[in-house]
Amino acid sequence: MTAAPARIGAASREAMAQWTSGLHDAVTAMFERLDGARFEEASWQRKGGGGGQARLLAEGKVFEKAGVNRALVEGILPPDAAARLGGNIPAGTTPHFFATGVSVVAHPRSPMVPTVHLNVRYFELSDADGNRHDAWYGGGTDLTPMHPFPEDAVHFHRVLKSACDKFNPAIFPAYKRWCDEYFRNTHRENEARGVGGIFFDHVRPDDAPFGFDAASLHRFVDSIGRVLEEAYAPLVERRRDLSYTERDKRLQLFRRSRYVEFNLLHDRGTLFGLQTGARTESVLMSMPPVAAWPAPVEPEPGSIEAQLAEMLVPRDWAAGS
Amino acid sequence: MTAAPARIGAASREAMAQWTSGLHDAVTAMFERLDGARFEEASWQRKGGGGGQARLLAEGKVFEKAGVNRALVEGILPPDAAARLGGNIPAGTTPHFFATGVSVVAHPRSPMVPTVHLNVRYFELSDADGNRHDAWYGGGTDLTPMHPFPEDAVHFHRVLKSACDKFNPAIFPAYKRWCDEYFRNTHRENEARGVGGIFFDHVRPDDAPFGFDAASLHRFVDSIGRVLEEAYAPLVERRRDLSYTERDKRLQLFRRSRYVEFNLLHDRGTLFGLQTGARTESVLMSMPPVAAWPAPVEPEPGSIEAQLAEMLVPRDWAAGS
Repeated sequence: MTAAPARIGAASREAMAQWTSGLHDAVTAMFERLDGARFEEASWQRKGGGGGQARLLAEGKVFEKAGVNRALVEGILPPDAAARLGGNIPAGTTPHFFATGVSVVAHPRSPMVPTVHLNVRYFELSDADGNRHDAWYGGGTDLTPMHPFPEDAVHFHRVLKSACDKFNPAIFPAYKRWCDEYFRNTHRENEARGVGGIFFDHVRPDDAPFGFDAASLHRFVDSIGRVLEEAYAPLVERRRDLSYTERDKRLQLFRRSRYVEFNLLHDRGTLFGLQTGARTESVLMSMPPVAAWPAPVEPEPGSIEAQLAEMLVPRDWAAGS
Repeated sequence: MTAAPARIGAASREAMAQWTSGLHDAVTAMFERLDGARFEEASWQRKGGGGGQARLLAEGKVFEKAGVNRALVEGILPPDAAARLGGNIPAGTTPHFFATGVSVVAHPRSPMVPTVHLNVRYFELSDADGNRHDAWYGGGTDLTPMHPFPEDAVHFHRVLKSACDKFNPAIFPAYKRWCDEYFRNTHRENEARGVGGIFFDHVRPDDAPFGFDAASLHRFVDSIGRVLEEAYAPLVERRRDLSYTERDKRLQLFRRSRYVEFNLLHDRGTLFGLQTGARTESVLMSMPPVAAWPAPVEPEPGSIEAQLAEMLVPRDWAAGS
């Protein structure tokens, strides 16, 4: 943590704005290439400062619903919100904030293609005089298969491991564990939302974790923002033309209900967005197009339902299934 | 509020247990008569004391999914839970609790038939020596139409008003307003979950509101527990054989997503149940069998979508639409 606060710079904020804007376009282009359909964009303004561009691809060929959103918001936080966010700012200081990020949730039509989520974000706390008191990155990406293909989880984790290892081999195990701990339906006996990936928050340039300096940390987060090209696109290409049954589709709709439950009951980003006046439709673009809560049944041993449930137990996917 | 705490009595708890058991059977019988299909019952035990009987009717003729649950739970509350519940017990006292209630959520297959929710419950706080420090009733019932039939809302509210007026004409306006205030998706510009009904909580025999004594208050809550026979069953009989279109069904699936959002983001009973170790499947039996989050579209003026949204603005339904 810095002893003396640095001045916030208009130039660095402009650079951050350009960063998320470029990332937003790159991710959008990847999903449009995979699907063939185009996103529609809705711009929104936030009361109090900033806004965003919500891009939605609905009823595509491959994606039943995919959202690729960018936000750049700034303003003043409620007194206790800075602490709730885990940010450091002296008591009695009015917390000014600046945040920008890109969020992706893609729900494929076919149950054979896994659902994916990705988010990268930068957050800054400052005072009314323009002194910066805290700054950090957060983000990650995780995969939620709707059909039991263990090799897809292996591929996803291996690409993430390789992306992390370029910076420091200690990163992947730490952020992988963080992901496994975070994406849990605690009300469902800790069942995981999917097969995990990586998750990180409050990663501060000033703390220099894993030997990062400000520039290499930014490059790392940017590389995670672009990792779906290698981690996810090949899975879509491998699975999108497979045929599937009514039963496969039912399993997908059932698993999606657990996705809804996690996002509305436990996801900090969702709850923070809804509480701080972000655009509800953008925050909830993560909701699946259709989800089902059927009567509970114990899956038969060896069935696809049981195999998929078994895949939700965290393990070292990068080492092979 | 009592000055000197009364002793809790085994006889009165047994009477409460019999009350919710009889109510549970009566409500179950009504839904079985309306549908023709039978409920399946799953019994569950709560770690720490008590349990429940969860009855589920899945894939019925009229009801795609209906849950009629009873719970009788007792034990020791976490230190701050008594206060969070709104209960009174001296500081430093270990709060023992006893609670029993019946909960109903019915999701009809046809979008022409409205969804209904009902709950009645009794709650008691005591200390380790068996002194009762607080006791109250809570409950209510509300209607969520999936198709714009204003006359159904009028019927539902008139029956509730009449049931309340038998005890005191001041009850219905107060509990109707409480319902309108409670069932709101605050993250959706305060859109109501449905057309309301009545809602009440912390109604204490010792406070004698509306001139109630302990016996008449119990009779009132019991009459609300049985009110669907007159308030809801006629609506099912009036609507269940109507034909409907794909568009009607889409509107139902869309409205159900707002039902999911309310229950997981805002409903105190749902969140309390999930946090205190009730059986998750019983707490979440309120989830609709299928729900949809389509791409947002502004409904055309005069369309069924616009008419239904218009019905969600609270009004004096009992006076006519």
